Amino acid sequence: MAELDISEVFNASKVLAGVARHPRLIGPVKGITDCEVYLKPENLQHTGSFKLRGAYYKISQLSPEEKAKGVIACSAGNHAQGVALGATHNGIKSIICLPAGAPISKIEATKALGAEVCLVPGVYDDAYAKALELQKEHGYTLVHPFDDPLVIAGQGTIGLEIIKEMDDVDAVIVPIGGGGLISGVAFALKTLKPNIEVYGVQAEGAPSMAESIERDERIRLDAVSTIADGIAVKEPGINTFEMVKKYVDKIVTVTDDEVAAAILYLIEKQKLVSEGAGATPMAAVLFHKLPLKGKKVVCLVSGGNIDVTSLNRVIARGLVKAGRDCNLVIQAADKPGQLAEICAVIGKHGGNILSVKHDRVESENVNGCRLLIELETRNHEHIAEIKDGLRSAGFDVE
Amino acid sequence: MAELDISEVFNASKVLAGVARHPRLIGPVKGITDCEVYLKPENLQHTGSFKLRGAYYKISQLSPEEKAKGVIACSAGNHAQGVALGATHNGIKSIICLPAGAPISKIEATKALGAEVCLVPGVYDDAYAKALELQKEHGYTLVHPFDDPLVIAGQGTIGLEIIKEMDDVDAVIVPIGGGGLISGVAFALKTLKPNIEVYGVQAEGAPSMAESIERDERIRLDAVSTIADGIAVKEPGINTFEMVKKYVDKIVTVTDDEVAAAILYLIEKQKLVSEGAGATPMAAVLFHKLPLKGKKVVCLVSGGNIDVTSLNRVIARGLVKAGRDCNLVIQAADKPGQLAEICAVIGKHGGNILSVKHDRVESENVNGCRLLIELETRNHEHIAEIKDGLRSAGFDVE
Repeated sequence: MAELDISEVFNASKVLAGVARHPRLIGPVKGITDCEVYLKPENLQHTGSFKLRGAYYKISQLSPEEKAKGVIACSAGNHAQGVALGATHNGIKSIICLPAGAPISKIEATKALGAEVCLVPGVYDDAYAKALELQKEHGYTLVHPFDDPLVIAGQGTIGLEIIKEMDDVDAVIVPIGGGGLISGVAFALKTLKPNIEVYGVQAEGAPSMAESIERDERIRLDAVSTIADGIAVKEPGINTFEMVKKYVDKIVTVTDDEVAAAILYLIEKQKLVSEGAGATPMAAVLFHKLPLKGKKVVCLVSGGNIDVTSLNRVIARGLVKAGRDCNLVIQAADKPGQLAEICAVIGKHGGNILSVKHDRVESENVNGCRLLIELETRNHEHIAEIKDGLRSAGFDVE
Repeated sequence: MAELDISEVFNASKVLAGVARHPRLIGPVKGITDCEVYLKPENLQHTGSFKLRGAYYKISQLSPEEKAKGVIACSAGNHAQGVALGATHNGIKSIICLPAGAPISKIEATKALGAEVCLVPGVYDDAYAKALELQKEHGYTLVHPFDDPLVIAGQGTIGLEIIKEMDDVDAVIVPIGGGGLISGVAFALKTLKPNIEVYGVQAEGAPSMAESIERDERIRLDAVSTIADGIAVKEPGINTFEMVKKYVDKIVTVTDDEVAAAILYLIEKQKLVSEGAGATPMAAVLFHKLPLKGKKVVCLVSGGNIDVTSLNRVIARGLVKAGRDCNLVIQAADKPGQLAEICAVIGKHGGNILSVKHDRVESENVNGCRLLIELETRNHEHIAEIKDGLRSAGFDVE
């Protein structure tokens, strides 16, 4: 592509004034001692994610003829809502192709923003093929979720806001899916303040950009799997690959458990709801993936659109990861008084019992019983202490 | 008390600059059509609640002699952390009395902010008695959680920030426990802009101020019970009762289910974590408790310190309240193929099955079986549709 010009990002910023929110930095966050961490909370953006910026700017720059025909996009997530809102604000028609199995809530949210929803049997790739077909047939403009210079320029406005608010920032950490967000932010930052470090974070189960950069060629993953569904992208964009290569200092990956722990951290310590993708920069900080010592750091919380049912599961997983919830399996004799004794030991060590399940079928011996006990605990040391206590009292803890 | 002067609130604002965060208004929020609602997110404040403001200002105004002796407070919650942080920032000693059964996490958080924690056997009243005893013995200054003019002036700074940011606001809605927050906010607003309406919200299970105002005398409730634990206060303060009488336009109450629904709304639509008390103003809006039509409204989200285990329970409760999770009980014959048939009917109507439990013991007849099915649904109409479908197919739905 033609090299992006910084004036395009400034222009996007002007166009987005009064449309996008400018969520202010929050911080320094608690409990991080070796560096000073601030959050750029794009989860507080309209539609719950940064995607509105790029989609809106792209749509605003269409010619009157293109606007008259309308736009089309393929997405079950944040991009769909960004395009829908962007088109509706600009008074033009939008069609969003979604795989038919997409969650009802996402379909409803997209419709509510004024888009026409086209449900396509099959998976994402089928919906994308349908979008291309409709585009050709009707002359719609396809709004790509990341690999478009104007979309990238729109996302870059976040970089402008960060340095406007904190001109002495040392490092900015950004999630990477297709690479549109980090391309825009890194381009803006490196152009205006080349000394700022820009780090990217991918999910361990979807490291398409990380591997592409490592091998110095765009690769396509066969499958991706991560709770950070917003960045579960199989292949980087052509433009974004080049821009990341040029402007990003380092890419690291985080595991699903690390992401869950970061989501929990943001809920408990910062009172912010983040989706998986949005929590990856915080996960990289919490699990020491980057050289941040002594630095002033901004983590971009890219979005907050996490389904509440998933949220409940993530909280549960995060509690286990932090040693604050644990499941003990104890082999015990199936006789009266055993449970009372076990509970007494646990209580003495300050564990709080949440549930107890007796299992006679899977026990090791016929007269035995397998106890599954769920406990609320303080941390991993506390769990070890309780297990030791039970073993000292003669119980067989698995 | 001597009538509070507005200069005291301006002074508090000056003292708190650089100490308290000034979280900006967020909004207008989504899905509310008959008025324009903004949030003042004090859950994003240091310590996760507004309490820091009053406690800090009170402590800052002590004489050098008082400062040398230190401060004491009684609280298991937000006030404890506010006092601890306020004292530590001012370089003075703080003792916090807590009932011995207080959650480990709250004790740890209070200690982490530099306070000395005194665990008192018994309940809150015992801890309070102990605090008074220690105060007399050592000459500490007691920092009251709400009934102190300087604490009230500190909370009033929120009122100044609201009108500074939005000078055409029509109404401000504030949670009421002891009444310190609303006294400060209402005093500031009514003094500077008498046309702004100030509404208070209490939990239905702890309506001490509402009933006191109604009877025109301070009453003490025998018991309080609500998920909004931050405002579970048995008796209004002497000062706060007078100020609420003078400055507050109306007080309404909300139920626990309404609070749970508001917490869920704030998580899903605004990506903000609120504790029960902090969600009461939003609950009053969502459940149409106040005359807000056509108005520009600010809901004060007073704090976000909700235990994540409670949060999971609240989300579950909020989903049920909104008709997005439902438990069906079906009496069926205990024979192969029944469950497949039931699942087919549910699937046809778009319900998503989360769990199925067979219960043979509590079934109505010996050859029967009781099925407990948990479903993810869209809303109450959707639940009714699924139940009708099952009944039409000949199943006995309870």
